[in-house]
Amino acid sequence: MVRAYGYPGGVTFPVVGMVGGGQLARMTHEAGIPLGIRFKLLSDTPQDSAAQVVSDVVIGDYRDLDTLRAFARGCDVITFDHEHVPTEHLRALEADGIPVRPGPDALVHAQDKGVMRAKLMEIGVPCPRHRIVADPADVERFAAEGDGFPVVLKTVRGGYDGKGVWVVRSAKEAEEPFRAGVPVLAEEKVDFVRELAANVVRSPHGQAVSYPVVESIQVDGVCDTVIAPAPGLSEEQSAHAQQLALRVAKELGVVGHLAVELFETRDGRVLVNELAMRPHNSGHWTQDGAITSQFANHVRAVLDLPLGDPRPRAKWTVMANVLGGDYPDMYYAYLHCMARDPGLKIHMYGKDVKPGRKVGHVNTYGDDLADVRERASHAAGYLRGTITE
Amino acid sequence: MVRAYGYPGGVTFPVVGMVGGGQLARMTHEAGIPLGIRFKLLSDTPQDSAAQVVSDVVIGDYRDLDTLRAFARGCDVITFDHEHVPTEHLRALEADGIPVRPGPDALVHAQDKGVMRAKLMEIGVPCPRHRIVADPADVERFAAEGDGFPVVLKTVRGGYDGKGVWVVRSAKEAEEPFRAGVPVLAEEKVDFVRELAANVVRSPHGQAVSYPVVESIQVDGVCDTVIAPAPGLSEEQSAHAQQLALRVAKELGVVGHLAVELFETRDGRVLVNELAMRPHNSGHWTQDGAITSQFANHVRAVLDLPLGDPRPRAKWTVMANVLGGDYPDMYYAYLHCMARDPGLKIHMYGKDVKPGRKVGHVNTYGDDLADVRERASHAAGYLRGTITE
Repeated sequence: MVRAYGYPGGVTFPVVGMVGGGQLARMTHEAGIPLGIRFKLLSDTPQDSAAQVVSDVVIGDYRDLDTLRAFARGCDVITFDHEHVPTEHLRALEADGIPVRPGPDALVHAQDKGVMRAKLMEIGVPCPRHRIVADPADVERFAAEGDGFPVVLKTVRGGYDGKGVWVVRSAKEAEEPFRAGVPVLAEEKVDFVRELAANVVRSPHGQAVSYPVVESIQVDGVCDTVIAPAPGLSEEQSAHAQQLALRVAKELGVVGHLAVELFETRDGRVLVNELAMRPHNSGHWTQDGAITSQFANHVRAVLDLPLGDPRPRAKWTVMANVLGGDYPDMYYAYLHCMARDPGLKIHMYGKDVKPGRKVGHVNTYGDDLADVRERASHAAGYLRGTITE
Repeated sequence: MVRAYGYPGGVTFPVVGMVGGGQLARMTHEAGIPLGIRFKLLSDTPQDSAAQVVSDVVIGDYRDLDTLRAFARGCDVITFDHEHVPTEHLRALEADGIPVRPGPDALVHAQDKGVMRAKLMEIGVPCPRHRIVADPADVERFAAEGDGFPVVLKTVRGGYDGKGVWVVRSAKEAEEPFRAGVPVLAEEKVDFVRELAANVVRSPHGQAVSYPVVESIQVDGVCDTVIAPAPGLSEEQSAHAQQLALRVAKELGVVGHLAVELFETRDGRVLVNELAMRPHNSGHWTQDGAITSQFANHVRAVLDLPLGDPRPRAKWTVMANVLGGDYPDMYYAYLHCMARDPGLKIHMYGKDVKPGRKVGHVNTYGDDLADVRERASHAAGYLRGTITE
């Protein structure tokens, strides 16, 4: 599959084309450098997170098929920083003979929550009770069919990090989600104990690896902290969640990294919340906590190379997201953070600081979970400016 | 010291200017990405190892002062991939107000072996017997002053990886080194048991960290394998070598990474062989084997940030260099190497394969030294093409 690309003289190292210039692309480039591959980026602006650090950048709009086609001509394979490339464009690239990984038939499940739910039900994967709803009155009926309000409403396309998601307590509150004119999915509000994520990577020839199941702690609908492995999860529960994620990857034909976000219910079951077919925030801990990071394995998967060992390198690894606060200058905060904790691993994205915006994350690892959590939480808070000592 | 550089809007993340586009620059860029800093490269050609992966590249000749000055204007600090920038140019940049790290007064000891030997003698660091020699007859006298031939001759400037170094057995054989017209240093041929390297990183405010002392195995004058830590080295010997390296860093005013290459003699002493003031081949194991890599700590040092923890993450880490062999296509060899060893860490430099040329390295780690060595050695040999199964 991998063509001789002729750079430099006679070497056949392939070109990975990444659509989207966000932090996932930035960190995928970082992970690809040691492999000696060529990395080509299609980015909205030269200021985007990944565009700041990649040599070969095309500035253009991924929604424009001609732009995508011109970009893809220099690539051996196309992969993604986000799920927003129109499905029909991906099919057009495939028809042009460009490997698209994950392919459109898989990716549509991460693009459209309605399609995702239908497929998961078909293959018998447990999900929250759900159906597409037509209007606020239909939301009221959906509530009455189950335990009543609150109900979770999601636009089937375009949402992320709490955007495009509403928790409503009445038909009146259910009016807003319909205003965009996008189909709306209603889901029961699951009475969960906590959120977990099962991350797997699958290659075109069908090899797959599974990372330890992690606990993901959300604050205001945004991931705040990830603990690897999920504390107190039994071996049986863990294996069950991993098998579930591997089955989803296989049945949906995923190539690359798949994050399966899960609710753990009070009675010990897991229900699938969301899918993401790309490196994912719940896998950032692998950069410093696993033998092979999610980014390195995503690159290996889209190139159909044998996958790397996903096992953890430390007893506990904690990832804490760094959100923007009131102080634009996070660099100055490095002095304190690095002096306080020489083992702290900072990962910044080169983004402008805006309140609440994800601008980086930190990883810590060690044997004592309470200590490892405190270190991550302190650093993230200090960088944000909510902790000042 | 670090100026507000105004990129992007209000953020003061500094710009590190790297002179030289080799693999050390490439891997320093990789290590700088997570810090959110800006990295600017002065490279000979767009095909250079680092130029392939860095966004902000200036193509130019580091021997030209105007080129250096124009490059430095966009940088908060200048550091180096190699030791070849003329000392007077570095002084000119400093006079312009640009921090140069390591500075010219330190770097001259890595540029000129005569200056290095004189300084080490002055501060009482043990070295092989040596002196500058005038001609082949003088080499004969130098030999007669000690244990006779063989004698090691080195041009005081410009050598690396065995280039600029001769082992001669007679005055007749000593003619070649004088042909370049560069001063020649004669040294006793030390009857060493093995070669060690003590790697330290020092920051402008005087903080320093010391990596475990490693054993470095050379083949044909080129580093082949590095074992961390050096097997069988006593705690006392290790502390002695580390203290020696820290003393050299301090006395010479080094900022950034310093590699002190050592001979271990039959009677258990260590003598300094060479110094390098930049990330060094004997420290590549730290990318996968230490909490903070030499590259990350070099960046932190030149920015005067607190240094990261240098401790090892594994009982044993082994680095094996990948040299060019007869087959230009190393990418194809990934299939076998990665499938055989999912924990293998490959680091390729994007260089054309030429016989004997360093084009990458591999790292392996684990609890069983024999196994860890076999894995590294197999992968390096398979990539080169000297092992075919």
